[in-house]
Amino acid sequence: MKADRRIRLGMVGGGEGAFIGGVHRMAARLDDRFVLVAGALSSTPEKSKRSGAALGLDVARSYGSYTDMFAAERLRPDGIEAVSIVTPNSSHADIAVAALDAGVHVLCDKPLCTTSADAQRIAHAVTASGLIFAVTYNYTGYPMVREARALVRDGAIGRVRVVQVEYAQEWLAGPLEDTGQKQAAWRTDPSQSGPGGATGDIGTHAFQLAEYITGDAVSELLADLQSFVPGRRVDDNAHVLLRFASGARGALWASQVAPGNENALRIRIYGERGGLEWEQEHPNQLRIAELGKAPRVHTRGSGLAHADAQRVTRIPGGHPEGYLEAFATIYSDVADAIQARRAGASGATALFPGIQDGVRGVAFISAALRSSKANAGWVRVDGA
Amino acid sequence: MKADRRIRLGMVGGGEGAFIGGVHRMAARLDDRFVLVAGALSSTPEKSKRSGAALGLDVARSYGSYTDMFAAERLRPDGIEAVSIVTPNSSHADIAVAALDAGVHVLCDKPLCTTSADAQRIAHAVTASGLIFAVTYNYTGYPMVREARALVRDGAIGRVRVVQVEYAQEWLAGPLEDTGQKQAAWRTDPSQSGPGGATGDIGTHAFQLAEYITGDAVSELLADLQSFVPGRRVDDNAHVLLRFASGARGALWASQVAPGNENALRIRIYGERGGLEWEQEHPNQLRIAELGKAPRVHTRGSGLAHADAQRVTRIPGGHPEGYLEAFATIYSDVADAIQARRAGASGATALFPGIQDGVRGVAFISAALRSSKANAGWVRVDGA
Amino acid sequence: MKADRRIRLGMVGGGEGAFIGGVHRMAARLDDRFVLVAGALSSTPEKSKRSGAALGLDVARSYGSYTDMFAAERLRPDGIEAVSIVTPNSSHADIAVAALDAGVHVLCDKPLCTTSADAQRIAHAVTASGLIFAVTYNYTGYPMVREARALVRDGAIGRVRVVQVEYAQEWLAGPLEDTGQKQAAWRTDPSQSGPGGATGDIGTHAFQLAEYITGDAVSELLADLQSFVPGRRVDDNAHVLLRFASGARGALWASQVAPGNENALRIRIYGERGGLEWEQEHPNQLRIAELGKAPRVHTRGSGLAHADAQRVTRIPGGHPEGYLEAFATIYSDVADAIQARRAGASGATALFPGIQDGVRGVAFISAALRSSKANAGWVRVDGA
Amino acid sequence: MKADRRIRLGMVGGGEGAFIGGVHRMAARLDDRFVLVAGALSSTPEKSKRSGAALGLDVARSYGSYTDMFAAERLRPDGIEAVSIVTPNSSHADIAVAALDAGVHVLCDKPLCTTSADAQRIAHAVTASGLIFAVTYNYTGYPMVREARALVRDGAIGRVRVVQVEYAQEWLAGPLEDTGQKQAAWRTDPSQSGPGGATGDIGTHAFQLAEYITGDAVSELLADLQSFVPGRRVDDNAHVLLRFASGARGALWASQVAPGNENALRIRIYGERGGLEWEQEHPNQLRIAELGKAPRVHTRGSGLAHADAQRVTRIPGGHPEGYLEAFATIYSDVADAIQARRAGASGATALFPGIQDGVRGVAFISAALRSSKANAGWVRVDGA
Repeated sequence: MKADRRIRLGMVGGGEGAFIGGVHRMAARLDDRFVLVAGALSSTPEKSKRSGAALGLDVARSYGSYTDMFAAERLRPDGIEAVSIVTPNSSHADIAVAALDAGVHVLCDKPLCTTSADAQRIAHAVTASGLIFAVTYNYTGYPMVREARALVRDGAIGRVRVVQVEYAQEWLAGPLEDTGQKQAAWRTDPSQSGPGGATGDIGTHAFQLAEYITGDAVSELLADLQSFVPGRRVDDNAHVLLRFASGARGALWASQVAPGNENALRIRIYGERGGLEWEQEHPNQLRIAELGKAPRVHTRGSGLAHADAQRVTRIPGGHPEGYLEAFATIYSDVADAIQARRAGASGATALFPGIQDGVRGVAFISAALRSSKANAGWVRVDGA
Repeated sequence: MKADRRIRLGMVGGGEGAFIGGVHRMAARLDDRFVLVAGALSSTPEKSKRSGAALGLDVARSYGSYTDMFAAERLRPDGIEAVSIVTPNSSHADIAVAALDAGVHVLCDKPLCTTSADAQRIAHAVTASGLIFAVTYNYTGYPMVREARALVRDGAIGRVRVVQVEYAQEWLAGPLEDTGQKQAAWRTDPSQSGPGGATGDIGTHAFQLAEYITGDAVSELLADLQSFVPGRRVDDNAHVLLRFASGARGALWASQVAPGNENALRIRIYGERGGLEWEQEHPNQLRIAELGKAPRVHTRGSGLAHADAQRVTRIPGGHPEGYLEAFATIYSDVADAIQARRAGASGATALFPGIQDGVRGVAFISAALRSSKANAGWVRVDGA
Repeated sequence: MKADRRIRLGMVGGGEGAFIGGVHRMAARLDDRFVLVAGALSSTPEKSKRSGAALGLDVARSYGSYTDMFAAERLRPDGIEAVSIVTPNSSHADIAVAALDAGVHVLCDKPLCTTSADAQRIAHAVTASGLIFAVTYNYTGYPMVREARALVRDGAIGRVRVVQVEYAQEWLAGPLEDTGQKQAAWRTDPSQSGPGGATGDIGTHAFQLAEYITGDAVSELLADLQSFVPGRRVDDNAHVLLRFASGARGALWASQVAPGNENALRIRIYGERGGLEWEQEHPNQLRIAELGKAPRVHTRGSGLAHADAQRVTRIPGGHPEGYLEAFATIYSDVADAIQARRAGASGATALFPGIQDGVRGVAFISAALRSSKANAGWVRVDGA
Repeated sequence: MKADRRIRLGMVGGGEGAFIGGVHRMAARLDDRFVLVAGALSSTPEKSKRSGAALGLDVARSYGSYTDMFAAERLRPDGIEAVSIVTPNSSHADIAVAALDAGVHVLCDKPLCTTSADAQRIAHAVTASGLIFAVTYNYTGYPMVREARALVRDGAIGRVRVVQVEYAQEWLAGPLEDTGQKQAAWRTDPSQSGPGGATGDIGTHAFQLAEYITGDAVSELLADLQSFVPGRRVDDNAHVLLRFASGARGALWASQVAPGNENALRIRIYGERGGLEWEQEHPNQLRIAELGKAPRVHTRGSGLAHADAQRVTRIPGGHPEGYLEAFATIYSDVADAIQARRAGASGATALFPGIQDGVRGVAFISAALRSSKANAGWVRVDGA
């Protein structure tokens, strides 16, 4: 008989009409480290059941609410070990705390939540539980992002001076939320998305990526936020200047009103001896320039990459890996961590984004909003 | 209880040290349409068992040979419905025929086999069985390849005049096969790979892609093949000129000795009114130029794509899909076909490469080798 | 006999060891609209003579100082009609005013000068003289910059919302000025370059380009300037946020410490209905995205360009024009203006940058420095 | 008084409605090494005079025919020293021989002429005269082409195995010659252009570039030529396979019916240890890949280039040089050679294309046409 060594996974959210839930499921499946066995997939019991059926979930494990799910699964010998939280942002905190209280490891979509108080609440629950907690800042799963991080850490470009990070999209250039499009509707509704619009939805990715690759923390920022589309209740364009603890400076631009940009997350990091450039839409390449040498293009899978990048590479160079693979890497990292925990290992430094990344992301949104209200004055980015 | 509607899949080959077997498994898994339940994964029973265990296969269904597998599975109520054949080329024919004889649908890696006689043998078995047969010319799974095909068919570039297709790699620029590297060893060994080297391994992909997108057939070709690496027993560089049935002309270049190229499959098609360009390493973009207009870049997921492309798109534009997603699309296409068959549907035209693509690929290799031996004289590409 | 209809040109600066003087001479020559007949090429009479001889100047017209040149040329029937000023920034004002007083049209390198008072002094002299005055913000000579300007003006992208402009270089990542390198020495010496470093040398180009293409004026800005290289006396990195009179917002980044960037001037403009992207290192292409359509690439010389771009195109599409051609266009525009003046024409709107662009550039530097000293507070950008 | 050290230049062809004549004039002017003093610019005396006047030529030196020009200029103490021949191909030979007989150095546009007999006739006249003779295969003037040549010669990529060269255009995709467009008319008229269409007009450039960079000679070729546009009298698409003397193999594609291509000359060269890639539309970059290292991008002016490239670079990296600059380099090379001749120097190896390149180009056209008539059989490329 086959002994399934896969981790039993539940999901909250991700039912009919959702986008990111399906991504999480493909990501969880790709490397065969998880098996989805339970879910509370929608906001009403009926839709939850229907969504579960569509996914082939055992009807008995397709729950009407996450509280039901955690309660029932806890009693099963084959109950869920981990849960993916893929609901709108404002509900993350309660679900995450409930999961941790139920002894379930968590993969929570970003941003972690919508208030600093909630962020602290979750952080305490993580510490108290000793469980694994990941925030799916999925772009950190790209091998060439790991490569960039390793290169900076190893001094390949010298001390960092300047960070230019941007995340540009076009999809909200018009009032899409007025058409009933579900993704636009909740992401521009402060009661669901939190107070940040572009800052929260994509700015947090850019911010986290900058801190992740540099290994440095933004100590203060100033922000000039706009809502260009009439009637929009959250920001749709954000210009932010960054000052890092190390003395490095940076600029962050997040926009959802930039025609010609689909999902243009791009980061450039310049140090005393060299520079790095990476863009998410062509993620298998990393451009490296060292002063006095011709710039070169490192590719995923070339055999020249750092072990941190090689480890998360599935197929040879020239066979492009994409968004889902990077997302899957977060899942597999978490699987490694869970299994190391089972095995009693103290655990190497994990490369997936954790609770601290989540807390920092919320602090970023909060700081950006406070600064913008103060006409772009400098504010501290608190939260460790 | 959960009723698994997934298709039960077996695999021949793909055990320890293999490359493409793992790709097939990820591809089968991504869209959750298949479940791998049995395998004859390696050439010896011991290795097969060990490989099966590593994959979490039920030990009872990890077979020592494909004949054992087909015999045993046939008797099970939950026996395999389809099989992936991922062994070296020379063994494809016997396995494929055995599978078809056992009533199992087949996904066979490319090239179909190593001789025209074998190709005919398989083709007859397919016809006789009435089963689904796919050859994993996986690049046809890319949405923008489907888009290109739809655009040509719909006349967007007018009647096709010129096809430039190339597939360049660098990995065999030196005598890698002499180092014991497994992939290099079998792919340069005519007894396993067949008589074609670059022609068979990658030239067939390029050839198939050209016929797939244009919807046209190459009627004759001339080829100048080389084995640049001393001692190599198969070609590692192929220059081929093509004449299509429609009157279009083309050039095909396949090389495994082109430093700076990882997996550079690229096709450009020029018609009376426009041109198309696509490259596999950046597969989410398709460049289209219509005479008298500025060239434009179509992207996967932009909402402007043809239904054939939209249908096989999982995530929004700007979130890159890659090689595994394209491969998975072949699997999901086959799943659709199998389920349509179950449902008694006559079936829409399938977009996955089938037995005819397989037969044509073998005909291409054969024609190229004959032409080259005749100092690059024109030869017919037979095989419908 | 040949009647030379070319404009007689003098030059101040541009002698031995200079960079930009040679560029001006090639630019003046390319379209055969000017003939260099006199010069005060260096800071000492001996070097001036030697430089003049090397260029084949008549020894009698190779002057020891610009005052000598203007005095002597004024008395000649074939005296200079125009002068190029290519000295370090701090000397521009006195030379420009002297030229205008001598009745000579002026092409002055950028930035116009180093203080607002000097800028006003020159502006008054221009008005008083009625002469042609150009500031060689040479990037405005690129056809695709003219195209971008025409597209914005004609509403192709709708009302502008966001401007992202940047100018990144790597050449001052180390303390090059300490090595005696002449270009680095004067450009980092406030007594010659003025108070701005990166802001003055390249930031002004970026600023002018943004105003030129959008046709909009920056009303206020905030700036965070750095001098990353120890001991450097001027800024070498500038992060600037922009607010335009129209309500558009922008970010400007100028850096001379960005390894991997040679002369990476890039501008992106996003409006309500579309976006434009252009980069100086590949200047023959302009990317245009209109919402709901696939992005397209306009090329110089394609026949699709606006008349403003076509007019300054010398050779067909695909035959790249570069930096010198764009620079030459400024010269030829000025030649047109001078000849229209001769002919008594009132003159169409000139597309070359004039005194107002020069005044604005100085205002930009001043505002950026003031803001940075005030910890990046907002300041007005004065100067019309 | 100014002693003009510039070389006195005449021009045959290049009058009203011409394209390449204006290019030659800008090229001759850019580096101030030539001064155009005489011309026989058009096919009729009236048009010649008018064209001369438009260019500001002394009316006495604007001749009605090239024979008049050579005769008259010979008698002047300030007569022309060199001549540019920019007429349709079929007239090159008589003019070139007349020039050489008159003791005038020659810069002749490509292809050298239209028959092998003419090519030999010119070659003998060059030898007999001892004069400088250049054929303006202008793409060899690009610094990064010189860089590529130096890299291959110095062994950077090892022994060359494969050459992929192509030159694609779209401008003749329709029957433009039927509209009276002058360039299309003469270039598709065998009596003016010679027997080759795409082969002669652009294929020769590609062929010469391949031999120039590799330093190797094509010993035999086979060609499949087409005239896709109905009624066209010359080929508009050419597929050619190449065998080099060294054993290297290659493919050459020239097409004037490839929509989306403006002037897409591109060459890729692969050797035992590395590969090079260069494309004319982005000429300031050269991609170099060495096996086992990340591919890197060499840029013109970066300071890393070979002396052969540095010598012909005018402005710093990142300030793009283009087509005219490369063309000007051929002129300046010739100026160097003429002045070295004057000075009695034996002369270093010249890097501009000379009579041998011209002879080879004609041999290429001839061989391609013979091969295509023989259904793409192999033919020798004769002509040293």
